[in-house]
Amino acid sequence: MLNLKLIGIDTYRDNVAFLARNCEQYRPEEYQAFKKIEVKCGNTRLLAQLLLVDDESIVGVNQLGLSEQAFRRLGLEEGASVTIAPAEPPRSLDHLRKKIHGHTLDNKQIEEIIGDIASYRYSEMEIAAFLVSSAGFMTTSEMLALTKAMSQAGNRLQWKSPIIVDKHCIGGIPGNRTSMIVVPIVAAHGLPIPKTSSRAITSPAGTADTMEVLARIDLSMHEMKEVVEQCHGCLVWGGHVNLSPADDVLISVERPLSIDTREQMVASIMSKKMSAGSTHLLIDIPVGPSAKIRSHGDAMRLRKLFEYVGSQVGLHVEITVTDGSQPIGNGIGPVLEARDVMAVLRDDPDAPADLREKSLQIAGTLLENDPALRGGSGYKRALQLLTSGEALRTMERIIEAQGPTKTPSCLGELTKDILAPEDGIVTSIDCYRLARITRLAGAPMDKGAGIDLFKKVDDRVVKGEPLYRIHACFKSDYVFSTKYAEEGDGYTIGENL
Amino acid sequence: MLNLKLIGIDTYRDNVAFLARNCEQYRPEEYQAFKKIEVKCGNTRLLAQLLLVDDESIVGVNQLGLSEQAFRRLGLEEGASVTIAPAEPPRSLDHLRKKIHGHTLDNKQIEEIIGDIASYRYSEMEIAAFLVSSAGFMTTSEMLALTKAMSQAGNRLQWKSPIIVDKHCIGGIPGNRTSMIVVPIVAAHGLPIPKTSSRAITSPAGTADTMEVLARIDLSMHEMKEVVEQCHGCLVWGGHVNLSPADDVLISVERPLSIDTREQMVASIMSKKMSAGSTHLLIDIPVGPSAKIRSHGDAMRLRKLFEYVGSQVGLHVEITVTDGSQPIGNGIGPVLEARDVMAVLRDDPDAPADLREKSLQIAGTLLENDPALRGGSGYKRALQLLTSGEALRTMERIIEAQGPTKTPSCLGELTKDILAPEDGIVTSIDCYRLARITRLAGAPMDKGAGIDLFKKVDDRVVKGEPLYRIHACFKSDYVFSTKYAEEGDGYTIGENL
Repeated sequence: MLNLKLIGIDTYRDNVAFLARNCEQYRPEEYQAFKKIEVKCGNTRLLAQLLLVDDESIVGVNQLGLSEQAFRRLGLEEGASVTIAPAEPPRSLDHLRKKIHGHTLDNKQIEEIIGDIASYRYSEMEIAAFLVSSAGFMTTSEMLALTKAMSQAGNRLQWKSPIIVDKHCIGGIPGNRTSMIVVPIVAAHGLPIPKTSSRAITSPAGTADTMEVLARIDLSMHEMKEVVEQCHGCLVWGGHVNLSPADDVLISVERPLSIDTREQMVASIMSKKMSAGSTHLLIDIPVGPSAKIRSHGDAMRLRKLFEYVGSQVGLHVEITVTDGSQPIGNGIGPVLEARDVMAVLRDDPDAPADLREKSLQIAGTLLENDPALRGGSGYKRALQLLTSGEALRTMERIIEAQGPTKTPSCLGELTKDILAPEDGIVTSIDCYRLARITRLAGAPMDKGAGIDLFKKVDDRVVKGEPLYRIHACFKSDYVFSTKYAEEGDGYTIGENL
Repeated sequence: MLNLKLIGIDTYRDNVAFLARNCEQYRPEEYQAFKKIEVKCGNTRLLAQLLLVDDESIVGVNQLGLSEQAFRRLGLEEGASVTIAPAEPPRSLDHLRKKIHGHTLDNKQIEEIIGDIASYRYSEMEIAAFLVSSAGFMTTSEMLALTKAMSQAGNRLQWKSPIIVDKHCIGGIPGNRTSMIVVPIVAAHGLPIPKTSSRAITSPAGTADTMEVLARIDLSMHEMKEVVEQCHGCLVWGGHVNLSPADDVLISVERPLSIDTREQMVASIMSKKMSAGSTHLLIDIPVGPSAKIRSHGDAMRLRKLFEYVGSQVGLHVEITVTDGSQPIGNGIGPVLEARDVMAVLRDDPDAPADLREKSLQIAGTLLENDPALRGGSGYKRALQLLTSGEALRTMERIIEAQGPTKTPSCLGELTKDILAPEDGIVTSIDCYRLARITRLAGAPMDKGAGIDLFKKVDDRVVKGEPLYRIHACFKSDYVFSTKYAEEGDGYTIGENL
């Protein structure tokens, strides 16, 4: 028996256990070879990676240390008596090996793999092995099985209304914060739209980051339901609701490896929407030279995959292929994007026209799902809800219900204008580069960091005129981002015809 | 500037850095998102994975902690001033992503990947991604490039003699310790055979583990050269000589994932032999129903790969396909295998005939590489060196030169005889199962743990007669291994015709 000790080390997603090398009850070196151990106390069990410790002030000879994550997941008190054993490797690793060596997996095998991943039984390298072998090839039926397995592995939201609408953008376009406009319009109409969003991981702002400028977003499932009952809509962070834990684990490995296959994207999105209880889903696929999808042919293939999975799992899917050739709106970064969103909702004449129009289109399409509405009148209804101020009031109610942010974020005070190097017309803007500059400026960590665009594609510029302004909150970020922008501003200026 | 602190945590192969969450000079949460940081002090740099710490007794606000491995690799004193920065991801990850998405890599791309792996710049999941994407498919020219890149990434041994012979077995057959007999025979003849071997990772004993029963094996490159100058041969552990560090890193991920493709096996073996300066290499491919290679067709395909790479890198390769249907010799486990080896070298009439004959065949083939020897007389010469005691004396000299083991290992005293369940003839022995029983008994960690076989294939047995004896040193290992053996003894007894 070892005594449990909490080790104040944050091991991110991994469960890590610490054992003294001179532990008297076990042979730590032998355990190290297995790398993974099972910690047991009665029926409570946890798999953890094992590290040996040579410092008794960290772990004593009769103690078992657990990292913060592992300790929380095990759920016992410090000092509790636990035993350890070499962990039996998850049985689904046999299926994984088959996949690595080129076999196709059946539904049951995929279910077992996803079940083990959702229970944190896979190491990062095993997850990487699953992702890479699936990226090599994945049949349509494997993709469908993956979708179903992922949605079954987590919580599921249930709603009383027979129609639950939802929207999702596959991402990659800075400033594209349509959800924060679409949700209040659709909710103002009375159609339920319980939106969960992600935080930015590689982009400069996710909907969750931007909404957080205005309101609390880390609602529990119960709180979320109350907000939706009250306002017909919400804008919360999906991470707290645990809708598809396997997807969260997969993404944590996909991102650093930059694996981004169509099949995995479809399974990821569709599984989360199934778990969220959506019935009618609109998916926005932006196409552009620096977007995730670069041609209409690719967009078409992706559309078919979404439609196929939707038809198989009983989720009505509609696809909108949109212009992804440049950022949407003027601001990039949470505070600036929240500013644009609120300007549109206030029907401010200076609000970014592209963000307004795209949001109205999406809201209009979603509203068509209301049987009470005449076919073809969705857009008009959306426009009316926006211009009448009903959407703005619904947004205010959602903010109030979720809990308004107590300490408002200010725009970063260190600024630098990036100037046009010559006269001409803006012919293209590199979404990827602008996103990178914004991240270097500190977004999304610093909500006030960002880029304010003064010129968009087709605008005429004069040499020396500002193209955009970088905002940063910290000196070092300011230096990094302005230096990077000066090496390449992301704009192409064409001839003044 | 942060002050360096050694954290007494053994992180195995990974470099791990520890930073206080309330560190005042950096924004730890931001760094955590990158996961990998670069630690700098002047021109000294190290990549490490970052963990945040909430306990000041482990890492203070102005300290940077490094795990034992990372601290040793950085090579600075405690208290040294260091800075950190988010690590630039290795550039070769771009090539890796191409490979994941189905592209073929060229020599330069593979060289860059292997260079980064050998310098510990890849995380375990990136290594897994490389292995899995290569397991999906690998062209012959990729395999060749991989072999060359791996051999270039480490130390290279250089020898004066124009002929350096070597042997290698692809493994999987318990008790197959021919190297310890072949090396003294060939060395006794005067042909240089500087043998480096691995320790067991998933098998119950490697040549290094067994040799360690008799002599020191962790020799430096310099010491190894001295032994070979003196005795014409050696039997040392390859892990200390750092011949192909990339291969060691790849193996550390291959093993837990059980990825074992032909191409990776060939690249791994051939790169190590190139680095070891071998000119004439004999590769033993055992074929059997529970061996790594299960059919003669598979052995043939593997042979072609070895021969192709050999011809391209200027290394003379000869293949011997051998009987892998049952263990070789009588003992499994370091002490018992060392006993068999010494019995053969002493030309003891009770020495295992199969181990003796196989070793003579291999030694004979290697001796044919001596231009001074008449073609076809290798086997006869090997036999003469063995029966005359010259091989035994050479082995004694090698042990003396490497340094005899000071504390001899004894055979495990907890024993259990596994009995024949019926009368009949042994028709097969499951190599995999016997290896597992031996590992459960404590080998290779406990050198005295093992199995002593009394019956081999074609032997007649009577019900109740012992098939083999399990030796263990610790009660718990004894219980595990005997229980597993009672669930299935690994023997098939056929009818007594």
